[in-house]
Amino acid sequence: MSYLTVLDILATMAFAVSGMLEALEKRMDTFGVFIIAFVTAVGGGTLRDILIGETPVFWMENLVVVYAIIITTILAIIFRKHLNRLRKSLVLFDTIGIGLYTVVGIQKGLLVDLHPIVCIALGTMSASFGGVIRDTLCNEIPVIFQKEIYATACVAGGVVYFGLSYFNLGNQWLVLISILTVILIRLLAVAFKISLPSLYKDN
Amino acid sequence: MSYLTVLDILATMAFAVSGMLEALEKRMDTFGVFIIAFVTAVGGGTLRDILIGETPVFWMENLVVVYAIIITTILAIIFRKHLNRLRKSLVLFDTIGIGLYTVVGIQKGLLVDLHPIVCIALGTMSASFGGVIRDTLCNEIPVIFQKEIYATACVAGGVVYFGLSYFNLGNQWLVLISILTVILIRLLAVAFKISLPSLYKDN
Amino acid sequence: MSYLTVLDILATMAFAVSGMLEALEKRMDTFGVFIIAFVTAVGGGTLRDILIGETPVFWMENLVVVYAIIITTILAIIFRKHLNRLRKSLVLFDTIGIGLYTVVGIQKGLLVDLHPIVCIALGTMSASFGGVIRDTLCNEIPVIFQKEIYATACVAGGVVYFGLSYFNLGNQWLVLISILTVILIRLLAVAFKISLPSLYKDN
Repeated sequence: MSYLTVLDILATMAFAVSGMLEALEKRMDTFGVFIIAFVTAVGGGTLRDILIGETPVFWMENLVVVYAIIITTILAIIFRKHLNRLRKSLVLFDTIGIGLYTVVGIQKGLLVDLHPIVCIALGTMSASFGGVIRDTLCNEIPVIFQKEIYATACVAGGVVYFGLSYFNLGNQWLVLISILTVILIRLLAVAFKISLPSLYKDN
Repeated sequence: MSYLTVLDILATMAFAVSGMLEALEKRMDTFGVFIIAFVTAVGGGTLRDILIGETPVFWMENLVVVYAIIITTILAIIFRKHLNRLRKSLVLFDTIGIGLYTVVGIQKGLLVDLHPIVCIALGTMSASFGGVIRDTLCNEIPVIFQKEIYATACVAGGVVYFGLSYFNLGNQWLVLISILTVILIRLLAVAFKISLPSLYKDN
Repeated sequence: MSYLTVLDILATMAFAVSGMLEALEKRMDTFGVFIIAFVTAVGGGTLRDILIGETPVFWMENLVVVYAIIITTILAIIFRKHLNRLRKSLVLFDTIGIGLYTVVGIQKGLLVDLHPIVCIALGTMSASFGGVIRDTLCNEIPVIFQKEIYATACVAGGVVYFGLSYFNLGNQWLVLISILTVILIRLLAVAFKISLPSLYKDN
């Protein structure tokens, strides 16, 4: 379990920063910023644990996660003027986060014997719903539903995960390659402004 | 259990279409449309299962539900130009959905020994919260809170369910009559533009 | 358990009124008003129970809570013209509610052996998320994230709770003093328009 926990924490810190930045943009107060950071960070994983009935949810029994969010948010608030310059690199944080969460979600689904398709859905929801909750609380239509290759990358990572599991790779390789698939697809999509084919040309 | 499952699937497909149509109106991308369809479809039932602690939630252990949503959404996206013409009949889909979900919710509540009043609340939430989540994610005040006889129809169906249960009817009749009650009230309300008495005349 | 239940009911009624008033402002219909009142009232506690896996959630097994919300909402709708004059005193209702919910949340966390920090987070979420759900469903950025000392008061109450627990006070005193701490901090903040130091002076 311990390396699942490490992945959880890394993803959590990345999401906390992304939540904090959106809350700052909405000019929330210190506590609003902190709560949005917290909810963004743990929202996807919390939903995942609730859906499969693994309660108390992960962050309640892993104080490391809670400390990581608190420290990340405090540091990020202190250095927020400098973060502003890093805003573009937020995409990278976020992308690593969704890669990690996708695979953690899949693995937690496997632990309770869910079908691969359901595991991929669970992984995708774990990865994307922190951001969905963040945008909803900030009174925006979730950005991932509109213009970005995001959930698509998660699903692709999940397909790679189960595709590779037919080969005799070690679990570490499975995890690593799947995470890198998510990250690669998302970064390529951002770099080359690739988006899904529009549904609206002909309307 | 098997006919509960069939009801779940039918309601799920109806809700998926309603979610998809609203997502298209918000000009979401393919994945946004799919996720809104999915969340609208399973949202009410997922909330129901979470509230009573029946996890992993229903769609995680019924691949049929997941396939039904995927196929419904793909077909609906392909034929979306024609769906546009059917937009008015969306009310019908939606209405059948809430009738089904109300009764499924009530029956699941009874299985865990909840009081009839709580069962009716559970049924009403199962029926209406897919739509509430849909509207919230689309950044709208949920339509059911504003101008439509909707939850009222669900509650009426629930009252009929428990009222009839004092008589010696078979369970199928209970289910059928309750569902038809919900559908009838909602369709009559829509047809004759009946809404609840306004609270605002005197403000 | 019985006095925890009484606290739950009192907090629940206070939150129901606050939900109802916001729903009236959005000109929702009777059922919309009722559902917003209900969701605001039980939202925080429901989230609390879901997160720790205590299902069916509290109001499903305490009909008193459900009756209290129904009666409160009916009375509040009937006397809504007079409530309008009481709008300013809504802050008081709300404040008592968050004080109560914070402590109930902490105590429920302790019952499942959670760490004090997690208990405080749980208490704060119990206290504040009814209002967050209320504002989100009313399509507003949650007010508690923006300008009010709110969650801060809950956290302070939680710190007092665990601070005092080192002394040999009876449980009733612990509870009472913690609740009064939350109420006092919030009311002082409202009275003297104290808010958290702004993050935006230098941006």
